[in-house]
Amino acid sequence: MSYDKIYYQDWEKMDQEKYLILDYYFESTIDPHEAAAHLCQEQSTAQWKRVGVDEDLRPEFASKIIDLQVERELETPSLPFQIDKWEKLWGTRLKIAYPIANFGPRIPNMLTAVGGEGAYYSPGIYTIKLHDIIFPDSYLDQFEGPKFGVEGLRKWTNVFDRPLFLGVIKPNIGLAPEPFGDLAYQSWLGGLDIAKDDELLCDTEWSPFAERTKVLGKLRAQAEQKTGKRCVYLANITDEVDRMIELHDIGVKNGADMLMINAMCTGLSGVRMVRKHTEVPLVAHFDFIAPLVKAPYYGIHSRVITKLQRLSGCDMIIFPGLGSRMKTPEIEVFENVNTCLDPMGPIKPSLPVPAGSQWAGSLGPLSKRVGHTDFAIVPGRAVFSHPGGPASGAKSLHQGWEAVEKGVSLEEYAKEHFELAQAIQQFTGKEKVK
Amino acid sequence: MSYDKIYYQDWEKMDQEKYLILDYYFESTIDPHEAAAHLCQEQSTAQWKRVGVDEDLRPEFASKIIDLQVERELETPSLPFQIDKWEKLWGTRLKIAYPIANFGPRIPNMLTAVGGEGAYYSPGIYTIKLHDIIFPDSYLDQFEGPKFGVEGLRKWTNVFDRPLFLGVIKPNIGLAPEPFGDLAYQSWLGGLDIAKDDELLCDTEWSPFAERTKVLGKLRAQAEQKTGKRCVYLANITDEVDRMIELHDIGVKNGADMLMINAMCTGLSGVRMVRKHTEVPLVAHFDFIAPLVKAPYYGIHSRVITKLQRLSGCDMIIFPGLGSRMKTPEIEVFENVNTCLDPMGPIKPSLPVPAGSQWAGSLGPLSKRVGHTDFAIVPGRAVFSHPGGPASGAKSLHQGWEAVEKGVSLEEYAKEHFELAQAIQQFTGKEKVK
Repeated sequence: MSYDKIYYQDWEKMDQEKYLILDYYFESTIDPHEAAAHLCQEQSTAQWKRVGVDEDLRPEFASKIIDLQVERELETPSLPFQIDKWEKLWGTRLKIAYPIANFGPRIPNMLTAVGGEGAYYSPGIYTIKLHDIIFPDSYLDQFEGPKFGVEGLRKWTNVFDRPLFLGVIKPNIGLAPEPFGDLAYQSWLGGLDIAKDDELLCDTEWSPFAERTKVLGKLRAQAEQKTGKRCVYLANITDEVDRMIELHDIGVKNGADMLMINAMCTGLSGVRMVRKHTEVPLVAHFDFIAPLVKAPYYGIHSRVITKLQRLSGCDMIIFPGLGSRMKTPEIEVFENVNTCLDPMGPIKPSLPVPAGSQWAGSLGPLSKRVGHTDFAIVPGRAVFSHPGGPASGAKSLHQGWEAVEKGVSLEEYAKEHFELAQAIQQFTGKEKVK
Repeated sequence: MSYDKIYYQDWEKMDQEKYLILDYYFESTIDPHEAAAHLCQEQSTAQWKRVGVDEDLRPEFASKIIDLQVERELETPSLPFQIDKWEKLWGTRLKIAYPIANFGPRIPNMLTAVGGEGAYYSPGIYTIKLHDIIFPDSYLDQFEGPKFGVEGLRKWTNVFDRPLFLGVIKPNIGLAPEPFGDLAYQSWLGGLDIAKDDELLCDTEWSPFAERTKVLGKLRAQAEQKTGKRCVYLANITDEVDRMIELHDIGVKNGADMLMINAMCTGLSGVRMVRKHTEVPLVAHFDFIAPLVKAPYYGIHSRVITKLQRLSGCDMIIFPGLGSRMKTPEIEVFENVNTCLDPMGPIKPSLPVPAGSQWAGSLGPLSKRVGHTDFAIVPGRAVFSHPGGPASGAKSLHQGWEAVEKGVSLEEYAKEHFELAQAIQQFTGKEKVK
């Protein structure tokens, strides 16, 4: 079809710095080559000439197919979409080169191009998933990325040789600043690196942000003095975007020395705005991401969102980790770990935090599988409902890591470490070692 | 189970102004009543007491089940999720009352509560879709909502008795401001109400926003003088959130008298920020919404996103309309029309724009099905690749509407109206009436 040809191009012959590469899986009721050409048209130069003018804007402005692999023919659609009728169904992997000059270094406009009407309402394509975006270095140069990165976080926390231990202060909702701060203080005394606000906790009447950060900022300083160690308070500044800079300033002034944003709730552009201003490391939490990423064969792959959070400037990214509650295939968890850490031109790495129902016993399997210590865990109950209280909970994490380092089984190590023994009892129901 | 009871409450006995109602569909591998209790716990007071303190924060801070209907038992999951193993599967409709005091009148924090980790990673629930959020008036009172609303838009455009005619200026991508403006000018001369930027067009090197709005602002004024009618230029200010206020000011100063934001690309909070500042009506476009809403049985129903865009202050909301390309069930299209217009306490209605491949012939079926004229259409090709050019394209829309008003068939009316005859030929391939 002559129609198709203009949308097909040889990547080797293109000016590669001028394009993003978009990696899609799609299923179509029409020939995949035709469907892919439609997709390029819809997501870029929908109408590419004026009436009565001899011109063609597509060579410069249309997105181009640089690879197309028909992976399979299907008997039925992978998802129960209502489709009019079909003779054949194809499942296709597609790589598209998208001209950066169509939108520039702007996250919202990039999202429009890669995840907008064009891509998701293209003729003959009934399901589509964006699997990856690959950025040329000259594009990445125009973004700030994480201010601290993994190396900066190591210096910031003064923890160099093991995973970082975060703890979600619980009860997460409902406590006034004073009792809430007391829990954090206990956890710091037990050795927790970073006591953090829950993602649900923000600026409320029963826990005003200014008051809470003042209380916890003071206690954090006291804990540092008492322990002689760095103690970090990670405060949640998720709020309307026109309040986040103000909350940053209040928080930092009051002694919160790390800040969290529920990135997809505020929008990634809101994160980038704070990044340009921030004095402390920024942490992203994964609310409102699941509806985009979790359906099989449709939507957006979680690695894309992880990558965009890194691009937006998050020094640490919390995402669904191992364990049945998180319902995330193991391979996807580690793809996200790698997406945080893989080389990305001038953009610093983000520290990956594969989260969900963690405790001391999570450290061995996770570090073994990751193969290094550049990650963090973020337990809640394991610290704050440890039977001995938050200080004991924090201790149990250190003991769990010591066991890993010494190559001793948890049970063995628990014989001499009471808090770990309590944690084993709490999480596995196994009798405490006498 | 005693465990369950605290999460179950009688709505009639609750202080209803203090809660949002969340309407979910979910499928579970465990008893739906237990699954629903888990869900409430996960999405609110995950841990509801301190160790060693006799307290229970749940009565005040936990979300509560106020209705639960097991709709069906399933043979297999509705979506091909990987599930460990199960004996039975249930599909359940659930209404939850969520305490507003947990987050307050903040869109990002509300999204965290209703679409965050808690709701989408709850034990035993392998798929979940948020179908609706119902807000009490006292909550809505704390939002600005649309500044103009439908009535204000009518006055703004001076069109009172028919649907509004928007047109997406095409070629959408690649034209410099001058030739781009010329197309808009022609469309205004033909009677188009609102010539608009494509959602993909923003502030680029080949079409800088300041220059484009200057050119189109001038031409708009000239067109008004020449036609004696209102002519509106809808400029796209979608950009990083920390640039949108500046773009608003530049656009308005230059004569753009309506502004568009790709709401989910910037984040709804970014829209609300512009709403608080805006001098002109705001229009939302639906990019990056499909990945959230289109999977059956998973994610978020499109009516929720429409409602949130209205809450954020969009005077006009563009969403997928009728036609096979838009792949949206007809019932869902009209649910979104109603979500724009239904009473919503103090929040003004938004004008619904069910979009997608429209032309003069779309007006009859759509207005008949809607039952009134409070909507807009937003054709692209029908205006800007009409064989007679943009002025003829705009004329064809008016002629199409005149036919509807007179109760005459399009073909009949086209006998005396050349531009309509050309449109029929363009869109149906039917021979032009002689």
